[in-house]
Amino acid sequence: MTTARLAATGDLATFRRPARLGAIGLGGWGQALATAYASSPALVLHGCHSRDEGRRAAFAERFSCRSYPSQQELLADPEVDGVIVAVPNDRHADVVVAAAAAGKHVFVEKPLAVTVADLVRIRRAVEATGVVLACGHTARRLAGIRQLKREVDGQSIGTVTSVEAVYGNDRGLIIEPDDWRADPAQCPGGPLTQIGIHHIDNLQYLLGPVRRVCALGRSPRPEVGNQLQVATVLEWDSAVGYLGVDWCTPGTFRIEVHGTGGRLRYELDYAWWGDSAHTDDHAILTRTVPVSGGGPTAGTASSVTEVVPLAVGNHLLEEIEEFARAIAGGPPVEVGLDAAEAAAAVLLAAVRSLSDGRAVDVASVTATIRAAASS
Amino acid sequence: MTTARLAATGDLATFRRPARLGAIGLGGWGQALATAYASSPALVLHGCHSRDEGRRAAFAERFSCRSYPSQQELLADPEVDGVIVAVPNDRHADVVVAAAAAGKHVFVEKPLAVTVADLVRIRRAVEATGVVLACGHTARRLAGIRQLKREVDGQSIGTVTSVEAVYGNDRGLIIEPDDWRADPAQCPGGPLTQIGIHHIDNLQYLLGPVRRVCALGRSPRPEVGNQLQVATVLEWDSAVGYLGVDWCTPGTFRIEVHGTGGRLRYELDYAWWGDSAHTDDHAILTRTVPVSGGGPTAGTASSVTEVVPLAVGNHLLEEIEEFARAIAGGPPVEVGLDAAEAAAAVLLAAVRSLSDGRAVDVASVTATIRAAASS
Repeated sequence: MTTARLAATGDLATFRRPARLGAIGLGGWGQALATAYASSPALVLHGCHSRDEGRRAAFAERFSCRSYPSQQELLADPEVDGVIVAVPNDRHADVVVAAAAAGKHVFVEKPLAVTVADLVRIRRAVEATGVVLACGHTARRLAGIRQLKREVDGQSIGTVTSVEAVYGNDRGLIIEPDDWRADPAQCPGGPLTQIGIHHIDNLQYLLGPVRRVCALGRSPRPEVGNQLQVATVLEWDSAVGYLGVDWCTPGTFRIEVHGTGGRLRYELDYAWWGDSAHTDDHAILTRTVPVSGGGPTAGTASSVTEVVPLAVGNHLLEEIEEFARAIAGGPPVEVGLDAAEAAAAVLLAAVRSLSDGRAVDVASVTATIRAAASS
Repeated sequence: MTTARLAATGDLATFRRPARLGAIGLGGWGQALATAYASSPALVLHGCHSRDEGRRAAFAERFSCRSYPSQQELLADPEVDGVIVAVPNDRHADVVVAAAAAGKHVFVEKPLAVTVADLVRIRRAVEATGVVLACGHTARRLAGIRQLKREVDGQSIGTVTSVEAVYGNDRGLIIEPDDWRADPAQCPGGPLTQIGIHHIDNLQYLLGPVRRVCALGRSPRPEVGNQLQVATVLEWDSAVGYLGVDWCTPGTFRIEVHGTGGRLRYELDYAWWGDSAHTDDHAILTRTVPVSGGGPTAGTASSVTEVVPLAVGNHLLEEIEEFARAIAGGPPVEVGLDAAEAAAAVLLAAVRSLSDGRAVDVASVTATIRAAASS
């Protein structure tokens, strides 16, 4: 076992044995994840399942694991400790509930779920069984977001006052009308659900719980029938901000944080998003602060911008290894049920705002979930 | 007359004589304006008025013009063709109405006004008298905003899909509770009125009329009693976007435009904002477009960012010379009653949204103004 290949330092003494995992959902993202984690010494990729027989066979061959013709068979296998779920959003709850009932730990892709009913089912299942639940909010693991967190907590730009987070790609220009992403029920708010959820988690990671949101959206392709651009304003106890998601523009991913003493800007070359071993090599974080004497007249301030050095990690590998270690008795996962549900609650508040045309309190969504889950 | 000093090329043959102008409101901004235009061959700075006697005397001496003890005397002087108004926002309508009644043309600072009632008074006065009205939406005259307009119109990044405009400075950290900017009646939404209005005009200049807005704001200094950060989402027929204004952060001014084929980013070193002869020297515009083959795997695209060369102008000089030329028989001003009222209507819609917690149609504000003005 090559401990040097573990993405994060952990106490290896707590490992009983590498967790044995099964992959459920073998589409593009399921494959990108497996590419990152398949050869990790922290786990064994034991088997896989997809409804698509060809995809299942190809995955099993590529990653040298067993192919299960049904999800039930995979979940019934006592050799499997946990599952990595990358199925469409509206199937997350079904798979999580079935896995928990079978005593399997669950890593599930973001968003945790896109309806209150599904969030309630997930909370009940996890609380009733005590399985480990981890959610794929991988973006906060990017080196630049980790550094942003350190800068914010260390007040390198004073107290944070406002923030902008923007995420775009060209998905909306190419999806077919029958794609599940084109269906507001499966993917409410389009890119808000599918990519915006990453920045929702990033922003709550950086600044704490969002209190209120208001969103406006556009559906520029009538045949698609879902929003392809959504602009959302957010309110915290201590700041305001913006989340912009755009499915009709070339890949873009950035966060800009303003504070009483300066500002920070993080930007990623989105092409490298899925190649998690190299994502951090294609990102830049800058810090801009005023400097006295630099302005046009005596005593006025100009500003200076510095590049902040970033470490290089592997965001996809890290999240799966952390899940595997948690199963094997390691520390709890970073993004578990509460954090994933909190991100989903902001998402659902924004979706409600899209249809109501008014600001929505996130606490009202969370209260509904919690009340239903405990009743 | 040194025609080379005219900021924009105009048909000098149409000039009867340089317009004779009076300055009303001689605070910091009135002085910054005069510094830019006082020696222009397109006009004669004939006189000035401020309620503050010392300020009046100092201005008259510095710019070698007459000092009028009262606004009435300045407006009664037949030698004066027009006035340049830089008084607090809630006095704009009074001065515009008085000037128009005296047959004087008016350049008035942004925002045109901050109440529907004042906007109605201004429209009535201008329509009844036919005086030239120009409004100080100087930001669209920045070389980078002009180039953004050319890029957007020329579709260098395809069709525009979303946009972010951010403007911040540290005014909110230093103003006293009795400053007029701290009063929601005189400066509704704080920085939204005072600096956000520039980006409202920029965005409507670039993308056409805003249809709907929703805003959330914060009042972090209870003793000030006005919002110091406001986050606003905007909806167009063809795009969505964001306007962020923050009065608790070091100076920052930028616009980012996303399109189906790339994105543009304009950023200004805000320290140079008031030194209009050099503002354009301290700005950068970049264009980012995908390049095939640059990504991590065969066939995937990365992106390349290029700096777009910018001309250098003088935004404050240009707006005042244009006003002077319009008075003297030149072309109409670029930002007249309609454009300035349209910016104010978006502002008032956002202010209403701040208090109502819901999205507000800009057309409803405009309809109210127009109906009252024509009744």
